[in-house]
Amino acid sequence: MVTDPQTACFEAGIKFGTLYHQFAGTPVSPASARSLERAMAEAIENQPFCESVSVEILDDELEAELADSTAEYTELTGRFMEVEMRIEYEGVTVRTRMEMEDGYPLMKLVSVE
Amino acid sequence: MVTDPQTACFEAGIKFGTLYHQFAGTPVSPASARSLERAMAEAIENQPFCESVSVEILDDELEAELADSTAEYTELTGRFMEVEMRIEYEGVTVRTRMEMEDGYPLMKLVSVE
Amino acid sequence: MVTDPQTACFEAGIKFGTLYHQFAGTPVSPASARSLERAMAEAIENQPFCESVSVEILDDELEAELADSTAEYTELTGRFMEVEMRIEYEGVTVRTRMEMEDGYPLMKLVSVE
Amino acid sequence: MVTDPQTACFEAGIKFGTLYHQFAGTPVSPASARSLERAMAEAIENQPFCESVSVEILDDELEAELADSTAEYTELTGRFMEVEMRIEYEGVTVRTRMEMEDGYPLMKLVSVE
Repeated sequence: MVTDPQTACFEAGIKFGTLYHQFAGTPVSPASARSLERAMAEAIENQPFCESVSVEILDDELEAELADSTAEYTELTGRFMEVEMRIEYEGVTVRTRMEMEDGYPLMKLVSVE
Repeated sequence: MVTDPQTACFEAGIKFGTLYHQFAGTPVSPASARSLERAMAEAIENQPFCESVSVEILDDELEAELADSTAEYTELTGRFMEVEMRIEYEGVTVRTRMEMEDGYPLMKLVSVE
Repeated sequence: MVTDPQTACFEAGIKFGTLYHQFAGTPVSPASARSLERAMAEAIENQPFCESVSVEILDDELEAELADSTAEYTELTGRFMEVEMRIEYEGVTVRTRMEMEDGYPLMKLVSVE
Repeated sequence: MVTDPQTACFEAGIKFGTLYHQFAGTPVSPASARSLERAMAEAIENQPFCESVSVEILDDELEAELADSTAEYTELTGRFMEVEMRIEYEGVTVRTRMEMEDGYPLMKLVSVE
């Protein structure tokens, strides 16, 4: 037996794994961060049950990374972004968020209602 | 409030989205299918709570695709593979499976126990 | 011995492989195509020696694909886009283009000057 | 006008961009490194004109990364691998190599003959 809230949580997880592994590795700089944020959000919002996605690429973190190097861009990875999503499945609303914890990007369920 | 079974389902979804979007697009032929299956399974088994992953790349489907073309390989996508996973989180076992439905790869929760 | 025009062509190839395999598989619909085009172009323009990138996602091709299905989005692949790039390396200008040939996306050198 | 050696170099670049951006971000540990090396090499060898690919994932670098963390895996990126390729196009042999330089993965043409 699988319940609707469980399926809603499974769907939420799929969207997070998709967003992260589709876009991790993309060349990114402060100058290109805005277009990438928007494309990531709109791409994932195409997926079923995905009501809203917000992606914030952290310019301060990018700039700190680039200050230590001769390069003008880096590769997108978890520590350069914050992500929030809202999934709606059969009347269940799931909210999720990605944040850094102990130096690792952690994808978390915030609420299931 | 988020329950352990809900979190287990969320974790299962993350693994599926990761597997699909990390490896979709990989150049694949019947000759390289075995090494790709194994690498996909072992890569995802690294992730937390992921007890087992099996990936079967469908040689018959690959061969049918290649018979219609002059190319000797194609890009990995959902219709060329079957995937099963088992996630264990705080005593909850989640089983998932990817299969084709109406021509689309559908990721499904099989059981939550 | 490697000449500057050869290195310029190598750099052009890297950008094409990057663009294709970073973004192939992204969920895409006519509604999200514009933001994805822009993000792809700006991401690749970050890379060294890459002077300009244009990406056109082909709404007609997307709509034809979606007309045959119950889904509202598909995965980005070569037949849904046209790409042009200009690489400048040590005074050498390389122009490249991706176009479909016999049903396969072909990446081509247009000119080396 | 485009010469055969230039096209050979362009093809070599495509393979490198493909390899890097298809597989960057893959969850990897010393235990899964062997299967990933093999799958990467065999996947890229499918591509036209690609005679041989060798991928070495650097266990020492992985272990150093994991020693500093609570995680048991990390994401594949340039500093964890060494790659060599040989491309053959119309009698031209191109050899390439990826190595770290100033902390960045640099893809280089080694020879064109």
